[in-house]
Amino acid sequence: MTERVGKKRALTFQELLFTLQRFWADRGCVLQQPYDVEVGAGTMSPDTFLRVLGPKPVRIAYAQPSRRPADGRYGENPNRLFRHTQLQVILKPPPVRIQEMYLESLVAIGIDLKEHDIKFEEDNWEWPVGGAWGVGWQVMLDGLEITQFTYFQQCGGMDLDPICGEITYGLERIAGFLQDVDSIYDIVWAVEPDTGREVTYGEMRLAEEEQFSAYSFDYADVGKLWEHLNLYESECKALLEKAGFRDDFKDFAKMDELTLKRFPVMGAYELALKCSHLFNLLDARGAISVTERVGVMARIRTLVVGVAKAYAAQGERVSELAS
Amino acid sequence: MTERVGKKRALTFQELLFTLQRFWADRGCVLQQPYDVEVGAGTMSPDTFLRVLGPKPVRIAYAQPSRRPADGRYGENPNRLFRHTQLQVILKPPPVRIQEMYLESLVAIGIDLKEHDIKFEEDNWEWPVGGAWGVGWQVMLDGLEITQFTYFQQCGGMDLDPICGEITYGLERIAGFLQDVDSIYDIVWAVEPDTGREVTYGEMRLAEEEQFSAYSFDYADVGKLWEHLNLYESECKALLEKAGFRDDFKDFAKMDELTLKRFPVMGAYELALKCSHLFNLLDARGAISVTERVGVMARIRTLVVGVAKAYAAQGERVSELAS
Repeated sequence: MTERVGKKRALTFQELLFTLQRFWADRGCVLQQPYDVEVGAGTMSPDTFLRVLGPKPVRIAYAQPSRRPADGRYGENPNRLFRHTQLQVILKPPPVRIQEMYLESLVAIGIDLKEHDIKFEEDNWEWPVGGAWGVGWQVMLDGLEITQFTYFQQCGGMDLDPICGEITYGLERIAGFLQDVDSIYDIVWAVEPDTGREVTYGEMRLAEEEQFSAYSFDYADVGKLWEHLNLYESECKALLEKAGFRDDFKDFAKMDELTLKRFPVMGAYELALKCSHLFNLLDARGAISVTERVGVMARIRTLVVGVAKAYAAQGERVSELAS
Repeated sequence: MTERVGKKRALTFQELLFTLQRFWADRGCVLQQPYDVEVGAGTMSPDTFLRVLGPKPVRIAYAQPSRRPADGRYGENPNRLFRHTQLQVILKPPPVRIQEMYLESLVAIGIDLKEHDIKFEEDNWEWPVGGAWGVGWQVMLDGLEITQFTYFQQCGGMDLDPICGEITYGLERIAGFLQDVDSIYDIVWAVEPDTGREVTYGEMRLAEEEQFSAYSFDYADVGKLWEHLNLYESECKALLEKAGFRDDFKDFAKMDELTLKRFPVMGAYELALKCSHLFNLLDARGAISVTERVGVMARIRTLVVGVAKAYAAQGERVSELAS
C-alpha cells in the first residue's frame, strides 16, 4: 500500500467539492444545485434522468444528497450512511478524452497517479426501475471504489442518441481516502480560519444519521407510507393519461403549443420520485414482503419509464412546432 | 442612476455563487448542500431552523432552492419565479462586524460601493408558522431589494440564546443586477470555455417554470393534496406525542440515552415541512378559502413550533446526560 495524501495537506470535504466543481466548470459544465426532492442517487435528479433524453447536448455537474434508508446504521458504522453525497457529472455527448479528464480531476484533488493503484473494473450500471443502463466501470483507488463511470446507453427504455458520459464521485469515500481516516464521521469538513478548529463530518451529520435511521427502521408509519405511495402513483398516472399514456403520448399532437409546453411532465416526474423514495422507506422498514417487492417495483417502473417517454415525446413535439 | 458592472466583466450566475461561497468559507462558514426536501425559504432548512436553537455556535452557508408555487408565472414574468435560489448565511452568534462583512461580500462580487446606492431599510422578518422572527433590514441596491439581513431573535416561539445573524441573498436578483439584464431568464448562468457560448438561466430553468406553474395552478389534484397534508400532519403529531408533546416533552427524561438521541425529531420536522409545502400548493391552486386559511396555518404552526420545542428539549437532555 502506498502512502496517501498526508492529512495536513489533504483537502477538507468542502474544498474537495469546491475543487471538483471548479475543475468541471472549467471544462464547460454548468454547476447546478442538487434537486430539492429526496432521491436515491444523483442519476435520479431530473438534471440527469430527463436531460440525457433527446438530442440536446448538455454538460452539468451537481452534488446530490442521496438517500438510501436501508443503508442507515444509526451512525454506528464507519462506512455506511443513510444519506451520502454524490458529485454527478453529465457530459452529453461524452468527449473523446473523458477518461483522461477524469484522471486529471483526481490529480486536481491531490492524488498522485504514480503513487496509487487506479483500476477501472468493468461494472455495467443499471437502474431497472428507470429503464436505464450503461456500459461502465467502477473506479478503484488502492482497492476502494471511489467513482462510477458510465456511458449511459438507455433511459426510460429508450436508446439515447447521443449517448451520455456520467461520472459519479462518492465524495465521502474520496474525502476519507485523502484524509486517511478510518471513519466517515472523522472526515474534516472544514477548518475554521481564525482558530484552526476542525469541523468534522460527524459534527455536521451524525445526529441526522442516528435519527433518520431510527425513523426509517423503527418509527415510520407503514400504513401512511403506503397511502402516500398509492396517492402519488394515482396522481402521476392520471397526469400521464392526460397526455395519452396508453397511446404513445399521441395526445401531445392534439394540444396547442402553450398547453403542450406547459404540460407538467416534470411535475409527474416528482410524483414518481416520491413513489420511489416511499418504496425505499417501506423497504427499510421491512414492510415489503419478497412476494410484493417485484410488483411494487413494476408499478414504479411504469411511472418512471412513462414519464421518460412523455418527456421525450413532449420535447419532440415542441421541436416540431418550433421548426 | 449610476452605471452597473459592465456586462462583459460581470460574474455569471454560477461564478456569483462560487464567489460568495468562497467569501463566507474564508470567514469560517461551513458550506452545506441545500436541503433535499421542498421548502419555501432557506430559513426553513433544518440547517437554519434547527441549528439556530440551543447554545451551540455555528457558521454555515448553503444555496437553497426555494419554492413558492403562488409566485409562479408560467415563465412569462421577467421577475417572478416559482423557484428561486437563496444563498443563506447563518452566523451564530453574529460577529460584531457582520454588517461590514456583508458589505465586503458585495465588493467581492464586483459592486463598487462608491458608485451605487446601498440602503438598509428596516424590515423586521417574521415567519409566523415557525414562531420565528427577527429584527432586520432589507438591503436595497439602487432601489432593488437584494438581501434580507436579520438578527434572528425567536424560533419556535422560543427566545434564541445566543441570537443569530442571518443573511439571505437573492441570487437571481443580484445576478440580474450585475449583468444588467431586464429578465431573469436572460441571466448568463455560465460561459462555455471553449466556444464562449453563454448558457442562460432560461435555458436551464424556463421549462421548469412553465411546467411547475401549470402543475400548481391547473393540474395538482386538490383532493390528494389534502389527503397528503392530513396524513403527514397526523404522523408528525403522533411522533411528537411519543416524546410528550402535551407535557413540555418531559418524556425525553424517561428515555434511555440511545432512545433519546435517536428519537427522530428531524424526521418529524420533514413531515412538518411537507405539510407546509402542501399548504403552499393548495393555496396556489386556489383550494384554500379565506375562512379555512387561518385554521390550516394554525395546524401547521402547531407542528413546526412543536418540532422546534422537541428539538430544543432533546438537545438539552442530551447535554445533561453527557455532563
